[in-house]
Amino acid sequence: MEGLILAQSRGHHPDLTNALRLLLHSGGKRIRPGMVILIGRLLRAPSNRLITMAAAIELLHTATLVHDDLIDGSLLRRGMPTLNSKWSAGATVLAGDFLFAKAAKLAADTESIEIVKLFANTLTTIVNGEITQLFSHGCNPDREEYLKRIYAKTASLFETAALSAAILSGTNEEIQISIKQFGFEIGMAFQIMDDVLDFTSDTSTIGKPVGNDIRQGIVTLPVINFIEQHPEEPVSKKINAGICPDEKDLQNLINGIQQSDSISKAVKEAEEYISRSITFISSFNNCDEKDSLVSLANYIIQRKV
Amino acid sequence: MEGLILAQSRGHHPDLTNALRLLLHSGGKRIRPGMVILIGRLLRAPSNRLITMAAAIELLHTATLVHDDLIDGSLLRRGMPTLNSKWSAGATVLAGDFLFAKAAKLAADTESIEIVKLFANTLTTIVNGEITQLFSHGCNPDREEYLKRIYAKTASLFETAALSAAILSGTNEEIQISIKQFGFEIGMAFQIMDDVLDFTSDTSTIGKPVGNDIRQGIVTLPVINFIEQHPEEPVSKKINAGICPDEKDLQNLINGIQQSDSISKAVKEAEEYISRSITFISSFNNCDEKDSLVSLANYIIQRKV
Repeated sequence: MEGLILAQSRGHHPDLTNALRLLLHSGGKRIRPGMVILIGRLLRAPSNRLITMAAAIELLHTATLVHDDLIDGSLLRRGMPTLNSKWSAGATVLAGDFLFAKAAKLAADTESIEIVKLFANTLTTIVNGEITQLFSHGCNPDREEYLKRIYAKTASLFETAALSAAILSGTNEEIQISIKQFGFEIGMAFQIMDDVLDFTSDTSTIGKPVGNDIRQGIVTLPVINFIEQHPEEPVSKKINAGICPDEKDLQNLINGIQQSDSISKAVKEAEEYISRSITFISSFNNCDEKDSLVSLANYIIQRKV
Repeated sequence: MEGLILAQSRGHHPDLTNALRLLLHSGGKRIRPGMVILIGRLLRAPSNRLITMAAAIELLHTATLVHDDLIDGSLLRRGMPTLNSKWSAGATVLAGDFLFAKAAKLAADTESIEIVKLFANTLTTIVNGEITQLFSHGCNPDREEYLKRIYAKTASLFETAALSAAILSGTNEEIQISIKQFGFEIGMAFQIMDDVLDFTSDTSTIGKPVGNDIRQGIVTLPVINFIEQHPEEPVSKKINAGICPDEKDLQNLINGIQQSDSISKAVKEAEEYISRSITFISSFNNCDEKDSLVSLANYIIQRKV
């Protein structure tokens, strides 16, 4: 799969080739393609189409990161300079577009039109979610909205990664639905943990300052938990009224979150998603593949970066 | 087809829906989808899949325009304000991404994996061409480079539009190759005429100042013809040395081009592409459809906007 990913960067403009190499080999954890391959093995999907699909998912993921970092003006990702920190906005837009094109081609190379449709619909979901976030004003502490947002942003692609492996295996619809749900639960847990790490990691490990999301007006689960448990705090009242915290409020809020059980409660919620995810693969008998998927699920709630 | 295009904008964030409506109904000439439908009828392709493909091609085209206008900082297109003139760069990037996703979904809705692959490869060609242009320095009057560039930018999508209609008709490979070539010739002529209009139209008709391309360092056919015919002019010597003209040179160059036969020579070259295109459909006997395609081909060299 790494070879297939690398091959996508060859034979184009030299600057593009170099940028793609850096982008595609800058320490991504390969969780999504790993899931595609493990589920595919669990269900005995043909290995070449599985690897093609895994590469397609990773490229789509990378394409969305390239555009996200540009839109957010992020200068670091995984501790490395982002493409937009080095290239013009225009060149960065095009590099993302190029990755979309390559991802679509790889999805088509699975020879499954069902997978291509799923893939295109997932991109629609992701982008519509980002546009909704970009056009929303103020701070919104609504839990339902949060769950919708992390589904669009993250869980939808995990779901598609899982389901596409099931489709390639030619398994029945009932199993496809279970596997899709497995991907959904893992994806939700993954994003909740990402939102937790935004409060527990610092610049040196994730390349962003603590509380980066709420600084940008994005209310995540630790903040929602804090507000629910401390509705009388001035900062909670502000956010409940849709007003984003100012710099002074921010520091109080971050300290409050770090000292309360808002974070451990969020981790507990992620753990519940992971526990549920495991029930969806519990009926399979291929012990090695199942163990690997359980390990992957548990890694989601243990990861530090 | 218009209904299908309109349907793509429904059911998403209201700002996105409104922006998509404006984008998709702002006086596009529908030449590419028109070609898909006419060729499909010529070859008796099934009409529903043909219409789906035509809409996919128009959406892909629109998506690339949205990102292009952002990258070039263009404020007007077809006499209307561009999306980037009203929206933030981030929102504009996402609107383009959304259109890519919808275009890919429509391409997949043709149920032909061959078409999806073709579609994805065409996007790769277009984007790689734009990146090459963005990273090129100075002014390059090389005719071969120009032809490569307009193939990537424009003719590749015309070629794909034509070929996809042939694929949907289930016709044999020999006819597919002829039809693909028809699309190629039309596309080359279309871009040459676009480059001619850059010197013959003014802001009120195409929404750009005269000589907009060369102002941005992009050497087009009228300039190449001028330089070939007047190599001793100081501005020709500069461009031949890779140096882009300054503001004073620019006015001289534009006047020179408008007073020489550089433009009529470029039009003649476009006419040659059109004449060749017609030879590729001359063997068909469906008179109505063939006449319509000949009319479309001739429109390319007669259009004023």
